[in-house]
Amino acid sequence: MNELELIASLTRSLPGNAFIVVGAGDDCAVLDCGQPGRFLLFKTDAVVEGVHFTPEAAPEQIGHKALGRCLSDIAAMGGRPLAALVTLALPDNFSPVFVGRIYTGLNALAQRHDVAIAGGETTRNPERLLLSISMVGEVAREKCILRSGAKAGDALFVTGELGGSLAGRHLEFSPRLAEAQWLTAHFSIHAMIDVSDGLAGDLRHILRLSEVGAELLARAIPVSRAAKLRARGESSSKPPLLAALGDGEDFELLFSVSSGDAVALLDAWNKQFPDLRLSCIGRITEERGLKLRDATGIHSLESHGYIHFA
Amino acid sequence: MNELELIASLTRSLPGNAFIVVGAGDDCAVLDCGQPGRFLLFKTDAVVEGVHFTPEAAPEQIGHKALGRCLSDIAAMGGRPLAALVTLALPDNFSPVFVGRIYTGLNALAQRHDVAIAGGETTRNPERLLLSISMVGEVAREKCILRSGAKAGDALFVTGELGGSLAGRHLEFSPRLAEAQWLTAHFSIHAMIDVSDGLAGDLRHILRLSEVGAELLARAIPVSRAAKLRARGESSSKPPLLAALGDGEDFELLFSVSSGDAVALLDAWNKQFPDLRLSCIGRITEERGLKLRDATGIHSLESHGYIHFA
Repeated sequence: MNELELIASLTRSLPGNAFIVVGAGDDCAVLDCGQPGRFLLFKTDAVVEGVHFTPEAAPEQIGHKALGRCLSDIAAMGGRPLAALVTLALPDNFSPVFVGRIYTGLNALAQRHDVAIAGGETTRNPERLLLSISMVGEVAREKCILRSGAKAGDALFVTGELGGSLAGRHLEFSPRLAEAQWLTAHFSIHAMIDVSDGLAGDLRHILRLSEVGAELLARAIPVSRAAKLRARGESSSKPPLLAALGDGEDFELLFSVSSGDAVALLDAWNKQFPDLRLSCIGRITEERGLKLRDATGIHSLESHGYIHFA
Repeated sequence: MNELELIASLTRSLPGNAFIVVGAGDDCAVLDCGQPGRFLLFKTDAVVEGVHFTPEAAPEQIGHKALGRCLSDIAAMGGRPLAALVTLALPDNFSPVFVGRIYTGLNALAQRHDVAIAGGETTRNPERLLLSISMVGEVAREKCILRSGAKAGDALFVTGELGGSLAGRHLEFSPRLAEAQWLTAHFSIHAMIDVSDGLAGDLRHILRLSEVGAELLARAIPVSRAAKLRARGESSSKPPLLAALGDGEDFELLFSVSSGDAVALLDAWNKQFPDLRLSCIGRITEERGLKLRDATGIHSLESHGYIHFA
């Protein structure tokens, strides 16, 4: 049983109650706690030394990344973050200065987005640092965007550029909160997710929950400079397009809107966010499965992330 | 710098915002998210293999303990739990059956208290299991009990029996949610905390935040059977009273009320909860410091948990 199968089996029978609007399976859990016109968003995310960052990462970057991952998930619901708790599991050889610098990075990002750090705890984890963030946020009920709302015919968009994030961007990315709030305020966004597992993997979450398929245009996928440089520099590295499809940790927004809104959205976006690329990368199809169209034809994208040239 | 000093230095300058009613330093963070008449409670707590449980603990007990600790903190605010997220950091040799049994224990306790498990995540922590729970709850604004409300002259009460929890009870305790809700519904509780660090340590949190002192009556402190047995069995073990004062992980409620309410409260309690002992263990004093009165006189309780026989 791999991790995904384990999660699937565990989440099939979780206890619910009347407060849950959306439980496990979206970017955040959604609760109805009686706030007039609003839902509560609830999220947790952890980073582990040697898994999500190397010992070379600056402590400020570790704090930034841990908080930023949760903020990115709040953004993907169209939400606004309110407060976070910090769980810091420290190795036996921890240095207070190092821990202080983690908080410096974390607090700076929190202040930029007006998120309160409402406490948390420290505990021991003898061999390695683990930093887990819990976050609550809120969203207007009619502006809460799920993964499950994509419709056949929708245009698919992604912000920024994808691939090669592990070269450095994964420690310094900007969660797309303002962008997501602007999108939901001005357009009817059908489905949204943040790109953390990789474009193909995260798109598959939308497709599965929306019960649709998609066709991506290879030349429209925005490949990051880091992915291109890496492909050029190392003979063994993967082609840049595959990096953009599969690398993960981009923390960009992937969303779908009615095709009729696509041109107006692109126009308005370019005026509002001239420094952040927005790409229309394909469309939602009634036919299930994920396909990639390039100059040589249409190819199936297998679920392990590699292209199957049929 | 020890852990407490580290936490103190980190929490002095955490970012806040307009939603925070109480930040770091109480049993839960308290947020005003606009729920009419209610506050949101927010808490996180982790258990780590080899720190909070031994490899011999049954996985159901590990799940029970992790969730129960958060529930106990919600209880200590007078609150009602709504939903939890589960962060499961798994060692490389994890068994899916073991993980399933953790959820069996966790889900059973969640259902008993109508708490939804709204998702969470699994990640790697190669050497040992770490299980962190995030929880949101709610409380009526005028019934939210802080650590900071104790007043000179108050009577001090504690539920249950204390000490020796590590002999087994720490894995199977019942969080005192119904009891705390009954207390706040029927009496004006001034200050409350759950006993997790040990009676003396947790009382000191109340005293520091309420800017008062306390005098405990040695013969009134309810010592658990486990603490007595342990003291009898091992020549090296500590006297039962010291175990009750310092052991921790009892997850009972410690609270103060006006001395004028004390007798009525004890009477009503014994009718409502005939199977759970409630003890009046002393009083809050204007004079700062924590003192213990026994047959030989009044002694200072030093902050390291041992009695200073002056």
